[in-house]
Amino acid sequence: MSKANNPKLKSWLTVESDSDFPIQNIPFGIFRKGKGFRVATIIGDQVIDLFELNKRGYFAGLNIDNSVLKSEFLNDFISLGKKKTNKVRERISDLFKSTTRKLKSNEKDRKAILSPVGKVELTMPIKVGDYTDFYSSRDHATNVGKMFRDPENALLPNWLHLPVGYHGRASSIVVSGTDITRPKGQQMPVGADKPVFGPCKLLDFELEVGFVVGKKTELGESINMDNAEEHIFGLTLFNDWSARDIQKWEYVPLGPFLGKSFASSISPWIVTLEALEPFRSKSPKQNKPKPLPYLKNDRDRNYDINLLVDIVPENGEGKTVCESNFKYMYWNMCQQLTHHTVNGCNVNVGDMCASGTISGPKRGSFGSMLEISWKGTMPVDMPDGSQRKFINDNDTVVIRGFGEKDGVRIGFGEVSGKILPAKK
Amino acid sequence: MSKANNPKLKSWLTVESDSDFPIQNIPFGIFRKGKGFRVATIIGDQVIDLFELNKRGYFAGLNIDNSVLKSEFLNDFISLGKKKTNKVRERISDLFKSTTRKLKSNEKDRKAILSPVGKVELTMPIKVGDYTDFYSSRDHATNVGKMFRDPENALLPNWLHLPVGYHGRASSIVVSGTDITRPKGQQMPVGADKPVFGPCKLLDFELEVGFVVGKKTELGESINMDNAEEHIFGLTLFNDWSARDIQKWEYVPLGPFLGKSFASSISPWIVTLEALEPFRSKSPKQNKPKPLPYLKNDRDRNYDINLLVDIVPENGEGKTVCESNFKYMYWNMCQQLTHHTVNGCNVNVGDMCASGTISGPKRGSFGSMLEISWKGTMPVDMPDGSQRKFINDNDTVVIRGFGEKDGVRIGFGEVSGKILPAKK
Repeated sequence: MSKANNPKLKSWLTVESDSDFPIQNIPFGIFRKGKGFRVATIIGDQVIDLFELNKRGYFAGLNIDNSVLKSEFLNDFISLGKKKTNKVRERISDLFKSTTRKLKSNEKDRKAILSPVGKVELTMPIKVGDYTDFYSSRDHATNVGKMFRDPENALLPNWLHLPVGYHGRASSIVVSGTDITRPKGQQMPVGADKPVFGPCKLLDFELEVGFVVGKKTELGESINMDNAEEHIFGLTLFNDWSARDIQKWEYVPLGPFLGKSFASSISPWIVTLEALEPFRSKSPKQNKPKPLPYLKNDRDRNYDINLLVDIVPENGEGKTVCESNFKYMYWNMCQQLTHHTVNGCNVNVGDMCASGTISGPKRGSFGSMLEISWKGTMPVDMPDGSQRKFINDNDTVVIRGFGEKDGVRIGFGEVSGKILPAKK
Repeated sequence: MSKANNPKLKSWLTVESDSDFPIQNIPFGIFRKGKGFRVATIIGDQVIDLFELNKRGYFAGLNIDNSVLKSEFLNDFISLGKKKTNKVRERISDLFKSTTRKLKSNEKDRKAILSPVGKVELTMPIKVGDYTDFYSSRDHATNVGKMFRDPENALLPNWLHLPVGYHGRASSIVVSGTDITRPKGQQMPVGADKPVFGPCKLLDFELEVGFVVGKKTELGESINMDNAEEHIFGLTLFNDWSARDIQKWEYVPLGPFLGKSFASSISPWIVTLEALEPFRSKSPKQNKPKPLPYLKNDRDRNYDINLLVDIVPENGEGKTVCESNFKYMYWNMCQQLTHHTVNGCNVNVGDMCASGTISGPKRGSFGSMLEISWKGTMPVDMPDGSQRKFINDNDTVVIRGFGEKDGVRIGFGEVSGKILPAKK
């Protein structure tokens, strides 16, 4: 484990005990600076400008072309490779630990390098090339199967043999804080003989975690279980917004399309796989059936990360409607990436793969309103006395995620999105 | 119609009568020049370097930044907008028509600007952002429905109400001439109780036409039937390679994934929508049922373009296994793009949308081996005495396409791809 992960490290920057961003995290993101952009990290509530750090000599010896650190997206930075980006993470750890005075004592540099997080605009961190959404939580797939197919045979025959996935729309992935307009589209009302057109009536979130590909492959090449982690740069929270009524009518036989492509939201900070190492946890047993050899998992490749979803009405009190955990995944990220490329499909830096809805075993841990309200039959009571079967106009959905161990909390911050009424 | 389309125009460059590239075509592509790239067009068998044309003053007054014309991809050129790119097409038409001597009489410029097509490497013309594959040929959807579902109710309930489509993999779209390695993957043999892993046994082509988005939209914005053509820059031939056995096992419930993502091939020249104007043809009646108003088609939006598929064994004689036509589409490109964005999904310059397999009403016009061999029950006899149910190792599949009217033939050239054996 990197020395940047040492739980005893403290920073000379203030880090509140409930902060997601102690000195052990050092995630990467982008913020707007004038007409340009800056690669950044965050400790406590201070956003740290990596371009300014490099310009002022604090990355001496790391040999990083500073044009990379004023890019609009992290892709070029990630393309430097883990060896280098991990050194950047360690250098930042050294500069900001409580025993290092070099930058702390230089007020001019500090002013140029640090900005309170409330004072900067965090922008879309990644130029997403291709985006793939998996369907890898067993409880979620089972819930959906029970609701829409046969409760006795909820899982489809292929589900336990491969991580089912599909290609999603990359262009409509947006950063946390971006408003989402309720989509319009075709729906087939129950009992009707022809479809109708109008605003989605069953708008839902899906609680997911996404990972960003950090190392490309060539067409024809396959990633395997042993080298998959080298290709994973880091993780984000991911809200796979879903229009259930549009999806239901359109998705046979070729899968989700307009029911998903109106928007997906991600958190602004990419938390590196290295920062999450302390939260590595047991993977579920896979022996009934055993996966084919290329998917065989013989290590702990799940992560114990608490995941929470709040619905916040406009000017109202929010409610936590879901408490789940990333450890509930049946298929892990390495299996997903190995399967994804077993046919020779190439991946590029900045590609994004999302987990699929992460549901736990109980209703309180279900990762979508479809499951929480069980197709609308069990509405959720809100603090203001209203109920929710799905998401209302002007509701904001907030997903948070963090791990905690040895007194250190490593988090993602949040991904939030407010639903605006459909356009006239 | 543009004066560049005038069927009476002749070029001072030699154009054989069966050439796809008379002076009325002027498609756009990219070729490799030293360590860089050049935006190009073609007349007859001469590739024309647009960077050199501009540098030598032949685009005077068009005000085009020459860095755009040495890009690796056409995206920046297309982003100039149709108004400008159509002026480029017209200027090229003027320069190369038989009555214009300016360039013809300047040997030095001619040498710098022209290269025989056999002497240059045509490269991937577009950096594809998002790729969407539709399923818009009624005969194809009916054939698939008859084979795998109910022959009496071959079309699924949504098919006549909307252009069914799904997101595809952009990273693995390659240019004509790129070898394709037979993919490996999971398959469930008939009668087996668990899947096996190995090379695809049922490798297929799908005859499709793709269009390239030429004008972007913002998230939340929708394209409509009246302005859809403004967003279509041009068309390519598209081979949507398909691994039928992998697809069959994986695709429920979220659609095609690894059965498609190992490769798709496109032709190197993007033929502009404007060049295809003479081949505009009647769209099919859509009144049983009528589509919802946002999809209503009241113009001729199909195109009469002959499409042919040849299978060519290694060192053997080829056979044309399919003669189809782009006019067979039930849903046209404008309907596809309108539907695609009706939920607010944004599109970008360089996005690609493919038609889905284009089958005509008879076996000889079916656009895939799945249909031609009717699931392998009716093999095709090859000239060397062998048979094909699907595509063999070392076979090359060649798709060609062209329209003919008033003595003018406007074509796409070809998209070809050779199947290499699966990796050990």
